[in-house]
Amino acid sequence: MNEKINWLREKMRGLNIQGMIVSNPVNIRYLTGINAEGVLLITRKENYYITDSRYIEDVQNTITIDDEIIVNNIADISEYDYENFFSFCENVGFEENYITYATYKNYMHKYKANNLEETDGILEKQRMIKDEKEISLLEKACSLTDECFTHLIQFIKIGMTEKEIAYEIEKYFLEHGADSISFETIVASGKNSSKPHAKATDKKIESGDPITIDFGCKYKGYCSDMTRTIFAGFVPEAIKPIYNLVLSNQLQTAKDMKEGADIRIISRNVDNDFRLNGYSLVHSLGHGVGLEIHEHPFISVKNDSTLKANMVVTNEPGIYIPGEYGVRIEDTILITKSGCINLTKSDKNYIIVDSIISEK
Amino acid sequence: MNEKINWLREKMRGLNIQGMIVSNPVNIRYLTGINAEGVLLITRKENYYITDSRYIEDVQNTITIDDEIIVNNIADISEYDYENFFSFCENVGFEENYITYATYKNYMHKYKANNLEETDGILEKQRMIKDEKEISLLEKACSLTDECFTHLIQFIKIGMTEKEIAYEIEKYFLEHGADSISFETIVASGKNSSKPHAKATDKKIESGDPITIDFGCKYKGYCSDMTRTIFAGFVPEAIKPIYNLVLSNQLQTAKDMKEGADIRIISRNVDNDFRLNGYSLVHSLGHGVGLEIHEHPFISVKNDSTLKANMVVTNEPGIYIPGEYGVRIEDTILITKSGCINLTKSDKNYIIVDSIISEK
Repeated sequence: MNEKINWLREKMRGLNIQGMIVSNPVNIRYLTGINAEGVLLITRKENYYITDSRYIEDVQNTITIDDEIIVNNIADISEYDYENFFSFCENVGFEENYITYATYKNYMHKYKANNLEETDGILEKQRMIKDEKEISLLEKACSLTDECFTHLIQFIKIGMTEKEIAYEIEKYFLEHGADSISFETIVASGKNSSKPHAKATDKKIESGDPITIDFGCKYKGYCSDMTRTIFAGFVPEAIKPIYNLVLSNQLQTAKDMKEGADIRIISRNVDNDFRLNGYSLVHSLGHGVGLEIHEHPFISVKNDSTLKANMVVTNEPGIYIPGEYGVRIEDTILITKSGCINLTKSDKNYIIVDSIISEK
Repeated sequence: MNEKINWLREKMRGLNIQGMIVSNPVNIRYLTGINAEGVLLITRKENYYITDSRYIEDVQNTITIDDEIIVNNIADISEYDYENFFSFCENVGFEENYITYATYKNYMHKYKANNLEETDGILEKQRMIKDEKEISLLEKACSLTDECFTHLIQFIKIGMTEKEIAYEIEKYFLEHGADSISFETIVASGKNSSKPHAKATDKKIESGDPITIDFGCKYKGYCSDMTRTIFAGFVPEAIKPIYNLVLSNQLQTAKDMKEGADIRIISRNVDNDFRLNGYSLVHSLGHGVGLEIHEHPFISVKNDSTLKANMVVTNEPGIYIPGEYGVRIEDTILITKSGCINLTKSDKNYIIVDSIISEK
């Protein structure tokens, strides 16, 4: 029987929930491998996946007998069937952080459940801890991203636009077996690098530009996330102290991150060190990575929980000087009992692209 | 004062709603032009947009004095402020089709509104009718898409993969001023064309393949949507009757579409004609297009409303023979009082690419 669904059923018993409607497609994919549109019903005795004719064949090919999931075509389900899925269930869980208020009301009406009960993100919380198979897919996504970065260092030339670089990244991923990019690629050069959430523009790379590249891919559903600030032609002297400050904090954070570490303290340490130098940490230090590019746990001073073994998170301090430039260095890392393992392995020292032209 | 917000205020009066929380970013963009993360509050006397420090500058640059929108940083808003936004409001509207159940409960708690009232998609319904400015942006998105198609006819060669073609489409759009593609491009050749919702794969184009290309771009937020089934090398005789049947129905639908036309009847006519020939219409005949690629009205037998002037919708009949091939022809069109105007202007007769090689 499907281990993850077994785990969920055990968890439901603890919460006095006898049935559950799983609607979030990411949670369904996590539990079953199914990548389609539909709803998963965990009833007292069975697991049902309800979808439409477009997906039935694909879904049947995805699941195995061991999953013990009954696949239904939504066209074949009557009003009476809906009312009977959860008969004799005192409480039926639903995902209050995913379904809309209108869908909630529709579920109330359709399933005639005795009581629809909020489940407080049980599945999102479980997804924080990755199993072996998930870790190997995340490793693969990260290594594709490292390989793409190695390619970029050769590819980027002064005079190219940010968009051309972003486009090359997507092309590389598609040609090397990734499903897709995992989020809209950021390529921010010169002044644009001073914005933490810049998009790639038509600006051309100029000699002396810092170039912040924040990118990643999906591999069999699992995401990677990596950032480097590199330099076109040469490294301007003025930016070196900032770069070194970001890098030393990124390395220190990697040392701090392990099972049991306090997320708030790790984040505060970086902010404190930045402030001692006249800057501050304007965005989160990191976030979980998995089937979604941003998932629990969020690594910030607002999170008072601790890291656990087999979490996969980013470590991404950054400093931004408005109107001038910015530096961010980000790895995707795996938390272990004794420390952390960098899944992103690319160099973090000064990297200069197209340096020959700048020496003219 | 902002015309669209004025319209909304009038509509609210009719619904006995004295305030409204607009959370859907597409609806906010429609009303204000703001493209950010935040919430728009329509209170008795004022319009507030609440966002965070990342977006404040951009938002201030987007809106004008005429918009009469007060922009607030979420960090500056106290519990007391939230409770006072809707004082003396009997009913406060919210978007039950957009916000989650958890957000609904959070709004209840935060705004302490007397009564949160469902608004039944008033904004989505208003968005169906495009104004002059919106129509000109949709025209531009469609003409970029026609130009891309003209380029593709020269570009596509036997031996290329579907992914290479999809990639060229994205590249073309980015290089010619589009914001992005409007949805994941479909390039489905040979047998793959028999799936209505195929993705681009690594399959190479072979001589005699039908190639269904379903693609579009966004221009200043507004989407285009177009499909053509073209042929590599030559048009197989077996497919011609299917192609002609799809095309004749697409042309007939264009004749039928005008203000006052019954959406159900138009859709049923196509399905009937397909069935007379042994096929059926397995997906909707079309959908609204605007800030979103799929929006109201949905053109299917399930919709018993009528078309109105200044709606922009797709006209996209298709026939799919499982395991063999499929044909779909889609234009984006503008409804007028007396008929419809094709915003997509590309040829719909047989188009053969790379025909020289096939003649060898």
